[in-house]
Amino acid sequence: MRGFLSEEEYLAYLESVARLPEGFRVSTGEIGFWPRERRVEKPLAMRLALVLLDRPTRDFAGLFTRNRFPGVPVLIGRERLRSAGQVRGVLVNNKVSNVCAPGGLRDAEDVLGALGAELGAPGGEFFPASTGIIGWGLPVAEMRAALPALVGNLHGGSCADAARAIMTTDAYPKALSAVVGGGLLTGFAKGAGMIEPNLATMLVFLMTDLAVPRTVMQDCLARVCERTFNCISVDSDQSTSDTVLLFSSGARPAPGAGEFEAALEGVCAGLAQDIVRGGEGTAHVIRVRVSGASGFGAARDFGKAVINSPLVKSAVYGNDPNVGRIVSALGDFAGNSGLDFEASAVRIRLGSELIFRGGAFELDEAKEKKLSDYLRQAAMDPARKTYPPHRGCVEIDVDLGGGGAEAVVYGSDLSREYVTENADYRS
Amino acid sequence: MRGFLSEEEYLAYLESVARLPEGFRVSTGEIGFWPRERRVEKPLAMRLALVLLDRPTRDFAGLFTRNRFPGVPVLIGRERLRSAGQVRGVLVNNKVSNVCAPGGLRDAEDVLGALGAELGAPGGEFFPASTGIIGWGLPVAEMRAALPALVGNLHGGSCADAARAIMTTDAYPKALSAVVGGGLLTGFAKGAGMIEPNLATMLVFLMTDLAVPRTVMQDCLARVCERTFNCISVDSDQSTSDTVLLFSSGARPAPGAGEFEAALEGVCAGLAQDIVRGGEGTAHVIRVRVSGASGFGAARDFGKAVINSPLVKSAVYGNDPNVGRIVSALGDFAGNSGLDFEASAVRIRLGSELIFRGGAFELDEAKEKKLSDYLRQAAMDPARKTYPPHRGCVEIDVDLGGGGAEAVVYGSDLSREYVTENADYRS
Repeated sequence: MRGFLSEEEYLAYLESVARLPEGFRVSTGEIGFWPRERRVEKPLAMRLALVLLDRPTRDFAGLFTRNRFPGVPVLIGRERLRSAGQVRGVLVNNKVSNVCAPGGLRDAEDVLGALGAELGAPGGEFFPASTGIIGWGLPVAEMRAALPALVGNLHGGSCADAARAIMTTDAYPKALSAVVGGGLLTGFAKGAGMIEPNLATMLVFLMTDLAVPRTVMQDCLARVCERTFNCISVDSDQSTSDTVLLFSSGARPAPGAGEFEAALEGVCAGLAQDIVRGGEGTAHVIRVRVSGASGFGAARDFGKAVINSPLVKSAVYGNDPNVGRIVSALGDFAGNSGLDFEASAVRIRLGSELIFRGGAFELDEAKEKKLSDYLRQAAMDPARKTYPPHRGCVEIDVDLGGGGAEAVVYGSDLSREYVTENADYRS
Repeated sequence: MRGFLSEEEYLAYLESVARLPEGFRVSTGEIGFWPRERRVEKPLAMRLALVLLDRPTRDFAGLFTRNRFPGVPVLIGRERLRSAGQVRGVLVNNKVSNVCAPGGLRDAEDVLGALGAELGAPGGEFFPASTGIIGWGLPVAEMRAALPALVGNLHGGSCADAARAIMTTDAYPKALSAVVGGGLLTGFAKGAGMIEPNLATMLVFLMTDLAVPRTVMQDCLARVCERTFNCISVDSDQSTSDTVLLFSSGARPAPGAGEFEAALEGVCAGLAQDIVRGGEGTAHVIRVRVSGASGFGAARDFGKAVINSPLVKSAVYGNDPNVGRIVSALGDFAGNSGLDFEASAVRIRLGSELIFRGGAFELDEAKEKKLSDYLRQAAMDPARKTYPPHRGCVEIDVDLGGGGAEAVVYGSDLSREYVTENADYRS
């Protein structure tokens, strides 16, 4: 159930799953800068990561946040996707998300132009990707100055260093790969709630050497994201910067479309669960499986109502089987969303225990004790550094007793550590 | 700005605002009981409160939770409202909410029948109202045994004791009254988030001696609740037990309908704000005023998106003016709800400072310092017992730049104390 790793063991694991597909190289760097918007005691650190295709490709796909105040990287990314020209790679920075900052578009284009000049390619062939404080502007001069070394350090082999570089306060770096057909699909991700003051959240970069055509990739990515990244929630806030990008170098022949989609779903599902596991202050991962729903969307929304309830989340944090809160969260959502169910048909399990059936709870002292032990066993200690590659979670099964659709969603509990991180007292 | 009271000062204030209208008496009591569902070290305490009209009335109104797993008191209350017979009062208990407990309906009717026998009235003339742990059954025998003393202790004058008795972990008792026409309207309330393990939340009891007819009362109460209790959120969860009841003894002539509604709105708005102020772990009350919206509902929903964002809430808790999170919360809601706005027309103020206009932030070091000071000044110390009768809050003004509608919503910050209370480790 536990199987947590030491840091050393985890990094060895990460190297093994972060293999770069043919035709890709990565590089990382770090700069110090003084923000314009706030007085700080010493320069802030920003990490850079570069993903570069050896040759430009037209086979790429992307999905972006639906937030109505998207960051400049999202605006530029959408434009690249629309124009469907050729692209060479992505330049990622943390610390400053470049969202609604005065002059933000000019800043991003300036940096990408300089990167292109280093590599002998137009700036328009690169995606920017930024997470960090919302409202601040990029430190353009410092970023430009770091580009020659960044390009000089490009390497193949593993993208474990890039997975580390894009982290903010993620608990650990996240990467995953799948061998499919004669090639490789590898992804790395960051995201842990909108942690650090104003930090914008999820970035996912997927690379493959399989020559999957552009149009197939985009449809496939959209379907897979619905079932993976759109089924998780750390703190229910969708950021201004959420981005998923998928690139193909085309170095190897494409497998069947179904085979590729299955591999993509495997990698994305694993990364999505890792994002929750590495979430800010996460002590328990909560998996809610909703079945008996009228459709996938309804099932997912009921599941999200459970994993987004602060009361369910804080009870799980405390290893307290307050199962009434699960029922209340489902009833609250049903009563206010128009997505209804037959209350007497609903059955709910926590772990292996049936707790609700026929409109009433089935609780007793012995069951209470079992459930409390179950929650305690599924806990990670957020204060202790452990590295869980796809391990245990608290399982809640809800059968709505209606249609045949189901969905599985993952969320985190609500801990004192989450509040502490996000309340970060400054001034 | 502060003006907090000592406990003694607050209780004197409470007496002055908790005057009972003509034709009403109240009483309180306490029992100890052993729950059937869980082993405890010593008996749990349950408080009872009784609101009694001297004579039965047909002039009453009620509103209940939309949660699809409502408690037995909500089911019975709806039936009383539907059948429109005469009623005598309400029996309130805390600690056990009687939601989805096996045999819960029979238990409630049993207790009300015994109460009616004490008072020479049918049990069907009383409303039950329960908050507390979801899933547990009422301790019927202990409650019945307490009824003679409860009836014996009935008194007029003030309902301050009833306001105290219905509390759970509310930070302080809440009551308010308004003189209107030749009569009085008085209300008392409990609610502080779904605090304590599985506690179900808001109960509000309103009493008047003004002979407002039943049909006028119900419409009036529905409109007022939309603008008051439905505009607050402590932790975004709507409980299984939320109930608002309004009774008239008819002892005095009715004022104009507009005059009565204005008084009702004043009392309900004050109690709603008090519920947020007394919310679990609340260190800051956050008031969001949204203007320039297409309708009241849209304005309220945008406001709630801000006060329900864990990231906005935890930043305010930390006195950290992370204004990017306000923008992100609005953009998240707009992008996912279909309720849109023109991003470049949005203007946002925090306190007296304009922070966002024309699609971009307006931030600098001096403003940052001012905002941080502003948040610190608006803070209550959740560890210190202070009694704030309608005092300071953090004011966020959002002008969507569209239509002419507006709404004001109140919420609380997200504190470590909230998590601690709700994670209550047991077993």
